[in-house]
Amino acid sequence: MKDPRKVWNIFASNYHLFRGTPSRLWLDYAFETLFDMTERLSAKTADAYYDTIETKLKQKEFLPRALYERFNIEVLATTDSPLDALEDHKAVCSSGWKGRILPTFRPDPVVDPAFPGFAQNVAALGKLAGEDTASWRGYLAALASRRQYFKSLGATATDHGHPTAKTADLSEQKTEWLFGKVLAAEADAEHQELFRAQMLTEMARMSLEDGLVMQIHPGSVRSHNEQILARYGRDMGADIPGRTDYVHALKPLLDRFGNEPRLTLILFTLDETTYGRELAPLAGHYPCLRLGPPWWFFDSPEGMRRFRELVTETAGFYNTVGFNDDTRAFLSIPARHDVARRSDAAYLARLVAEHLIDEDEAVDLAQDLTVGLVRKAYKLQRTGSRE
Amino acid sequence: MKDPRKVWNIFASNYHLFRGTPSRLWLDYAFETLFDMTERLSAKTADAYYDTIETKLKQKEFLPRALYERFNIEVLATTDSPLDALEDHKAVCSSGWKGRILPTFRPDPVVDPAFPGFAQNVAALGKLAGEDTASWRGYLAALASRRQYFKSLGATATDHGHPTAKTADLSEQKTEWLFGKVLAAEADAEHQELFRAQMLTEMARMSLEDGLVMQIHPGSVRSHNEQILARYGRDMGADIPGRTDYVHALKPLLDRFGNEPRLTLILFTLDETTYGRELAPLAGHYPCLRLGPPWWFFDSPEGMRRFRELVTETAGFYNTVGFNDDTRAFLSIPARHDVARRSDAAYLARLVAEHLIDEDEAVDLAQDLTVGLVRKAYKLQRTGSRE
Amino acid sequence: MKDPRKVWNIFASNYHLFRGTPSRLWLDYAFETLFDMTERLSAKTADAYYDTIETKLKQKEFLPRALYERFNIEVLATTDSPLDALEDHKAVCSSGWKGRILPTFRPDPVVDPAFPGFAQNVAALGKLAGEDTASWRGYLAALASRRQYFKSLGATATDHGHPTAKTADLSEQKTEWLFGKVLAAEADAEHQELFRAQMLTEMARMSLEDGLVMQIHPGSVRSHNEQILARYGRDMGADIPGRTDYVHALKPLLDRFGNEPRLTLILFTLDETTYGRELAPLAGHYPCLRLGPPWWFFDSPEGMRRFRELVTETAGFYNTVGFNDDTRAFLSIPARHDVARRSDAAYLARLVAEHLIDEDEAVDLAQDLTVGLVRKAYKLQRTGSRE
Repeated sequence: MKDPRKVWNIFASNYHLFRGTPSRLWLDYAFETLFDMTERLSAKTADAYYDTIETKLKQKEFLPRALYERFNIEVLATTDSPLDALEDHKAVCSSGWKGRILPTFRPDPVVDPAFPGFAQNVAALGKLAGEDTASWRGYLAALASRRQYFKSLGATATDHGHPTAKTADLSEQKTEWLFGKVLAAEADAEHQELFRAQMLTEMARMSLEDGLVMQIHPGSVRSHNEQILARYGRDMGADIPGRTDYVHALKPLLDRFGNEPRLTLILFTLDETTYGRELAPLAGHYPCLRLGPPWWFFDSPEGMRRFRELVTETAGFYNTVGFNDDTRAFLSIPARHDVARRSDAAYLARLVAEHLIDEDEAVDLAQDLTVGLVRKAYKLQRTGSRE
Repeated sequence: MKDPRKVWNIFASNYHLFRGTPSRLWLDYAFETLFDMTERLSAKTADAYYDTIETKLKQKEFLPRALYERFNIEVLATTDSPLDALEDHKAVCSSGWKGRILPTFRPDPVVDPAFPGFAQNVAALGKLAGEDTASWRGYLAALASRRQYFKSLGATATDHGHPTAKTADLSEQKTEWLFGKVLAAEADAEHQELFRAQMLTEMARMSLEDGLVMQIHPGSVRSHNEQILARYGRDMGADIPGRTDYVHALKPLLDRFGNEPRLTLILFTLDETTYGRELAPLAGHYPCLRLGPPWWFFDSPEGMRRFRELVTETAGFYNTVGFNDDTRAFLSIPARHDVARRSDAAYLARLVAEHLIDEDEAVDLAQDLTVGLVRKAYKLQRTGSRE
Repeated sequence: MKDPRKVWNIFASNYHLFRGTPSRLWLDYAFETLFDMTERLSAKTADAYYDTIETKLKQKEFLPRALYERFNIEVLATTDSPLDALEDHKAVCSSGWKGRILPTFRPDPVVDPAFPGFAQNVAALGKLAGEDTASWRGYLAALASRRQYFKSLGATATDHGHPTAKTADLSEQKTEWLFGKVLAAEADAEHQELFRAQMLTEMARMSLEDGLVMQIHPGSVRSHNEQILARYGRDMGADIPGRTDYVHALKPLLDRFGNEPRLTLILFTLDETTYGRELAPLAGHYPCLRLGPPWWFFDSPEGMRRFRELVTETAGFYNTVGFNDDTRAFLSIPARHDVARRSDAAYLARLVAEHLIDEDEAVDLAQDLTVGLVRKAYKLQRTGSRE
């Protein structure tokens, strides 16, 4: 393990490389608002930063729950495997703390045949749910049961990180056959993709039953860097976006459930070319569809501006869901929401200046984009919620 | 049939959902300029709006021809099936009214083998034209004859709404064989596409002969919503754009007629990614090509801005054709042209401010983009035309 | 040959057609700064322009070397076939003139099996390098030898103009077999593409050895106009961009060399949809990758603005290489750099105005984007270089 101060000094000396990136923005925001450091980070200020941060992080005001309160967070959701017993969530629930930490049902490990250990995961799922997951019906029952369990701990949503947005609506017979094939590890890439596609439609069906909001985050070409994959394994950061089709990919699911107003299906993308061409027209048309905020590489000032410019005219504001970040860096949460609010406010201000909306509407919209839409889309209202 | 006032009240109560969309813009413009309603539509003002609109629409100033004059419309073109006898157009022509309502030759029903009733349509075409459309030559003769008929009633253009921009230039023998196949309903999707592709090239050839301006509106995935299709049939609004290729798709037609300055082929798109990558370079290169204005979802302030930003540097202004809207809402025509003029004016103003063009050039261009280019591209000049 | 004054007059009369294009910009800049012509070119001023330009071009201040000095050019690089003996470069080197004119190794004629005369080119390569290019090893040795020769005359880079960015990393056995096939003109389009793909990886390997910076300019659909191709041959201007994939195409090369900080691989594109989706994430991740400036149709004010807006947030400024134009019009060089500097300055100014960077950083960056990054990326520093 390298000396952290040395690593920090190298980072500080190279801080200029981050100019113009959102990482720079988030860091500066946190440095200033949390650590009162306003002189720019550089080789010269590196030690002062290090000392200040080290000191402050030891104070009780910097404990996670204290920061949660300070950040005025209303809800924080994790994404969790169906195999997770959610002990941490239970601990938080029973702790008496009033913070709201919700699990999100992320079934990739048990619905993606390309996931490492898929067959064992499905077996473990059966054990956990008390169902025979060697059978298609038992497998579905087990998934429904785990969804219910997540819901009991506050979950309001599911999340699906498939390589594509492909959906399918096969006959039960065909699906059973396919399930057998993937479980026996006899499915080629195409059949694995077909199974994932079918599972999105199954998840939509279950969402209609249990009310969980469905999110699809497709289009990442994972583990692009072969050497990093070989040396460190999956999910080490070498993920590159690919082209993503929604119009044809979502059709089977939409043919079945697209017109259901009781279903909420939130779409994300890493392919901005789909904003205007595919996503906005789809969301403008289908009652179940909503557009999630700019994601990942596009969770940034320019990314947010392009999102509003490209989707608003066709989908309107009310088919979007406000802003939720998906950071793993707890301290960056306020900065990210600050960026989103400023970006949206700038867009609204321009609409007012160009007489496309009135000022009182912009004020309304600012509130809706900040809290109203996200609370509604993710079903986060509850009795006695703060604010 | 629902009570229209109730429907109107629901609409008015949800008017905020249209914030930021061009629909909102067009409506507000019409409310204000035609009905003198300047307080925003809402649940509160719904009844006042309803009463005013109801009253005004009964006045003779609100009859279509009165509005045509009031809107200062120079030409209004419909799109019509080759099977249409154009009785309405004849009636207008012989009515003595000086408005100019032109038909446009839209042969989809008789050139698209996937069109419902294609074979019967082709037979009807033969009957109407007095040609044997069971033979390839008779079929072509019938099309040429109907084009001539449209021309005799003022048509200056054709329009083609194919799913893709694919063209073909097959041998006559191959085409005859293909025609037999599609007529006998024995063609699969690929052969149907090939036939449509060949027909675009045939239409270009006829355009060279009869001078009709050719328009291609490709790239719409029609009837995306299965349930709406099953319940209400085709063309009920569930059309979603798809990716569209032009570079390879148009090559066969361009190989044959691309360098003909006497041919005018106007391209539209629902895939904005092609503006800079494909359409502007193609239009900049081929003498026959022009770029139509932003279409459908992009007939909007942002859509128009992006169009100019993405095509002007490569294609210039003079390979575009000014603005024509394709609305079915008569009352929205002035608003749409107002938006186009303001958008273009804003773009020109920026070029002047950045010293990329001079102010006198901007004034020239504003005139060209508003009337000059569209009159020329669509061959709409006529002796004694107004203005 | 037409009377040049008449051609000029036709051009001058049509100068308004260039409004809003970069060609107009570059011309106006050259007219004003080089020829002191400030009244706009038009039919009226055509003769005065012609006379002035004719007179000035005969003055010794307008000889190429004088203009090179006047333009304050630091380096000018040509692209040359490996078969070129580079006699002109040798003549410049030995002339005592202090201008720096470097060759660039552009191996398309000997690595692209679709290049006219490929087999003869490979044979000529062998002769030139004293290697048996009928064998795979001899062929590689000959290429390495020619690279060395280019280097000896100052070359710091190679350039590759393939139709796609596809790379491959085949076994030596498979490559040898493929080489035999392409040399015998028995390869179909797919195998030709595979050979080009493999050669990019071979070139990267050689770059690691000899330090030449590698550039890929993919995505042009060459000779799109069939009639021009038939009449005038290749490279007569009818080149249209096509869609370009980088994420999958570059993977074989990146799997092998992507993490090598000693390799510099500069990517260009004619497909702007890849800026944010593919190129910026790839360049942000892989140590060897850099992004070249907006190329060809996008070497323009709007093109440059979009480039910065779409890549900076993900790749930062320091994974780009500043600006290099690729003009064939010597007199346009100052204008092109002026446009690039103004565009970048405008982007930096906006970042400062929006508090995304500080003003002193913008000043730094302006210097880096103008000279620092390009000198470093192309290894152009040398002892006693001007400035």
